[in-house]
Amino acid sequence: MRSHYCGSLDASMIDQEVVLCGWVNRRRDHGGVIFIDLRDRGGVAQVVFDPDLPDVFGLAERVRSEYVLQVRGRVRHRPEGTVNPSIPSGEVEVLGQALTVLNAAETPPFQLDEEDVGEETRLRYRYIDLRRPEMQRRLMLRAQVTRTLRRFLDDRGFVDVETPMLTKATPEGARDYLVPSRTHNGSFFALPQSPQLFKQLLMMSGMDRYYQIVRCFRDEDLRADRQPEFTQLDIETSFLEEDDIMGLMETMVRELFAQVLEVALPAPFPRMTYAEAMRRFGSDKPDLRIPLELVDVTDLMRKVEFKVFSAPANDPAGRVAVLRLPGGGSLSRKEIDDYTAFVARFGAKGLAYIKVNELAAGREGLQSPILKFLPDNVVDALVERSAAVDGDLLFFGADKASVVNDALGNLRVRLGHDRGLVEHGWRPLWVVDFPMFEYDDKAGRWVSLHHPFTAPRVASAENLGDAPGEVLSRAYDMVLNGSEVGGGSVRIHEPEMQSAVFALLGIGEDEAREKFGFLLDALRYGCPPHGGLAFGLDRLVMLMTGSASIRDVIAFPKTQTAACPLTDAPTPVDDRQLQELGIRLRRQV
Amino acid sequence: MRSHYCGSLDASMIDQEVVLCGWVNRRRDHGGVIFIDLRDRGGVAQVVFDPDLPDVFGLAERVRSEYVLQVRGRVRHRPEGTVNPSIPSGEVEVLGQALTVLNAAETPPFQLDEEDVGEETRLRYRYIDLRRPEMQRRLMLRAQVTRTLRRFLDDRGFVDVETPMLTKATPEGARDYLVPSRTHNGSFFALPQSPQLFKQLLMMSGMDRYYQIVRCFRDEDLRADRQPEFTQLDIETSFLEEDDIMGLMETMVRELFAQVLEVALPAPFPRMTYAEAMRRFGSDKPDLRIPLELVDVTDLMRKVEFKVFSAPANDPAGRVAVLRLPGGGSLSRKEIDDYTAFVARFGAKGLAYIKVNELAAGREGLQSPILKFLPDNVVDALVERSAAVDGDLLFFGADKASVVNDALGNLRVRLGHDRGLVEHGWRPLWVVDFPMFEYDDKAGRWVSLHHPFTAPRVASAENLGDAPGEVLSRAYDMVLNGSEVGGGSVRIHEPEMQSAVFALLGIGEDEAREKFGFLLDALRYGCPPHGGLAFGLDRLVMLMTGSASIRDVIAFPKTQTAACPLTDAPTPVDDRQLQELGIRLRRQV
Repeated sequence: MRSHYCGSLDASMIDQEVVLCGWVNRRRDHGGVIFIDLRDRGGVAQVVFDPDLPDVFGLAERVRSEYVLQVRGRVRHRPEGTVNPSIPSGEVEVLGQALTVLNAAETPPFQLDEEDVGEETRLRYRYIDLRRPEMQRRLMLRAQVTRTLRRFLDDRGFVDVETPMLTKATPEGARDYLVPSRTHNGSFFALPQSPQLFKQLLMMSGMDRYYQIVRCFRDEDLRADRQPEFTQLDIETSFLEEDDIMGLMETMVRELFAQVLEVALPAPFPRMTYAEAMRRFGSDKPDLRIPLELVDVTDLMRKVEFKVFSAPANDPAGRVAVLRLPGGGSLSRKEIDDYTAFVARFGAKGLAYIKVNELAAGREGLQSPILKFLPDNVVDALVERSAAVDGDLLFFGADKASVVNDALGNLRVRLGHDRGLVEHGWRPLWVVDFPMFEYDDKAGRWVSLHHPFTAPRVASAENLGDAPGEVLSRAYDMVLNGSEVGGGSVRIHEPEMQSAVFALLGIGEDEAREKFGFLLDALRYGCPPHGGLAFGLDRLVMLMTGSASIRDVIAFPKTQTAACPLTDAPTPVDDRQLQELGIRLRRQV
Repeated sequence: MRSHYCGSLDASMIDQEVVLCGWVNRRRDHGGVIFIDLRDRGGVAQVVFDPDLPDVFGLAERVRSEYVLQVRGRVRHRPEGTVNPSIPSGEVEVLGQALTVLNAAETPPFQLDEEDVGEETRLRYRYIDLRRPEMQRRLMLRAQVTRTLRRFLDDRGFVDVETPMLTKATPEGARDYLVPSRTHNGSFFALPQSPQLFKQLLMMSGMDRYYQIVRCFRDEDLRADRQPEFTQLDIETSFLEEDDIMGLMETMVRELFAQVLEVALPAPFPRMTYAEAMRRFGSDKPDLRIPLELVDVTDLMRKVEFKVFSAPANDPAGRVAVLRLPGGGSLSRKEIDDYTAFVARFGAKGLAYIKVNELAAGREGLQSPILKFLPDNVVDALVERSAAVDGDLLFFGADKASVVNDALGNLRVRLGHDRGLVEHGWRPLWVVDFPMFEYDDKAGRWVSLHHPFTAPRVASAENLGDAPGEVLSRAYDMVLNGSEVGGGSVRIHEPEMQSAVFALLGIGEDEAREKFGFLLDALRYGCPPHGGLAFGLDRLVMLMTGSASIRDVIAFPKTQTAACPLTDAPTPVDDRQLQELGIRLRRQV
């Protein structure tokens, strides 16, 4: 029905006859002629209708925004002064000789270039919102990303294998979406939170190298930027050590950025231990574009009389740290109050600070409500260790280390953005040497920092229980500009170790057998050493397109209440259907 | 951990040191040395352990089937007479110099080459079943198929876009899998039976060319070879007519077969109308490899006294047809009885036949219980029209046309296989010009032959109601060796036509708005002409690998009762989870 995409026209095609199909982006009547900007996926072409052809002209007069047209015409130069150098087809226009209205359109609920449109409206009329060139670009870039990743993995012998969507409740910790079974009333499938166990089973099947771009599901409260269904690039290999896996994966991401964004990422990616990341950045996914660091001053505070500092400094689980903000001396009282409220969200009871006005003036050159509590030698050491210069401001965190890290780590990111300190570019790194277990004070037991199939860095199952908090795991996270884009580990491949980890996590033998019996069996029939990784595709594409939300890189996303304004899903269903499934609704509360 | 895949060794590597990892396929002790066939995804390598290295030899002695080993050794020629020319690595062996047991294995529940293993056992220990080279080959071929299809579509501007899995009940006719919503208690998502409406919305979004390899779900009783979740290659394009779409799609399938199987499919694929397919083959997915055809003799039977033939011959909805089986004169009474029982499954009340013993002998040369009911001129016309020769057998179908087609169409396929008549090779075709509607006698209303979004071949909505049974649709099915591998259509792109089709199908305005309001809205805001296709990937790969079931080309399939013997899914869940979802179990019946 067409000869060219609208955006593909250029001066090389002068005098050619073309047939275009697309949407009316804009219609203008000017100097007795009609100009229609016709839009398709490829861009926009300007079509001119002269009154010389009264039938065609008459039809063109009745055309409105978002009508779908087929236009036949001849390409010609735009008149002097009307050339639009900002678009590829801006040198030429099409003199329309025939026009078919393929479909009329009512006035759309919003204009494509309208900015002040609520997200609910955009999602309800998503098919109009997706016509925006920016949205088209994002979805096309997403497809380019998956294509590039697939080709990289295909070329290296990874086999794309599909795993079930209707499966058993998975042990990832989040809530499962459940699917009632009609043929087994009273039983339920779960939608997968990840294909973790299936990809491990594929390694036990001798599949050797596996990947899949796969939908995963988590029925969690959608704080921030989460979706109930999300997409993962899931990878697993046998007979490789973590260094091999990490090397291959960072090569893949480097090639991805080179091919899609023409960006050269560092080779190799820097690696940082979890301990170092927490110490310097208060986060296990540090944004290295922000040139601010936490400086530990716990040792300096042990003997000060100021209890706010000395108590955590003398607590083995405590920490006192300083975050120096260059030029922060100019912060107003109100700004500091705002930051104090900000860190309170992460559990910090306050936000002490010192303004460094003039170092040469000694204590007189410093300004702080807490200065009077600190002796000279501590102040001198603080200034020296934090490398403060005139005009800086020092923020303090003093609490349990977890609170200090969370508060100052988030404050660091916030300050980076507020103060325009975020460097341009891409700063990937690997975070490694994670603790295997964390103690959950509330539950009174050990929990996995990653998942219970992650291999610990110990020689044998007997070594596990001695000091669980000190055992490191063979996990690795790929972090990019402050986001975890991928995470994985070498897995446990021996049944004894797997049972020992389950036991340490308080999963009794019966429960382990009920939930993971098939895994424990499989480990006994010849399981190769294996490991892998999963990348969050939505987040990766969000970063690569510079989008504000993962909703911007998903064609038909859900809202924060896990609903779809376009289709109105979820919806009530017939009682007959529920009967077949052996379930009924509870009384509404 | 390794230098080579086991199967990659060959004579060019003599004297090289290699490190292999894999599973013990077989261990033999012979002439004082130990032979281990080590298996990985790439094949098998023979490793020899000499008693010269007592430590290694001692370890090798303790190794059992399916142990996972790492072996270091030197490649050498196999001794004369022990060369195995049937495998690539059969000229060489590895003299083992070091051996690490990466993992021990208990005796597996079945041997890989054991044939008499029930499917339930294979599925329960699927990770062992998948180690069979045949299963590995199938899954790898499947990945090669998707890779080839993706590259074809990527290269032609089709954009891979993901559509939701948690969506609204779809109107495909089959039962939906439902997912209770926790945030909207009492409401349910449905898992998609296909992304039909989303891909149409993508066309309305200006995405122009879309594809996706996507999981779909149908909660149907699993007769024959169905799976509750299956995979579809889903395609849609704008501004193309059906000839363009069919041309592109058959080019894709031709390239697929050329690249993956090195098979040249015909160009172009033959096209056959639905009417012709039913008349000649009694099926809308004829297997053209079988050189048997139905011959219509309705007109011959109108005036015979034999009511079994004359009644359907005089019924406008009836049909009398002959299926000639060359050489069928040798069929025994028992065989004919079996075929009579076979056609009864399809509703046929009997299976009349005539054996053609000796045409030269006239009526005397024919043998049949019904011969006495047929006059000479009819018998002569039957022989002539069916082109019967001595030794043939003529089967008769006489009933409603739908019963005759179903019975003789299936008998034709059965005879083709039973009598070894199925020709070797690949016989694709397009079936076109389907009826738009069928009258459902039970429901007393018209139903769609495809789905209600298929465009009818009429000029305008007003023409639709005149004779709905005679309206053809713009649908097309790709049929290969008797299986429908793909199906699609040009879609309705005008709101008036869509409303008219809904009305004709008895979907009232309120119901249409409730179920498809978003589609009807979208059609009003500028919808391009569009159409597409969906291929059943599982079935296509099943055909391409020569597998007996789609379960053989799915890594982790479900059983006929929609359960997974490996994970035991579906399973009961905690009442707490059901409470959160606002549902409870009905009392067990």
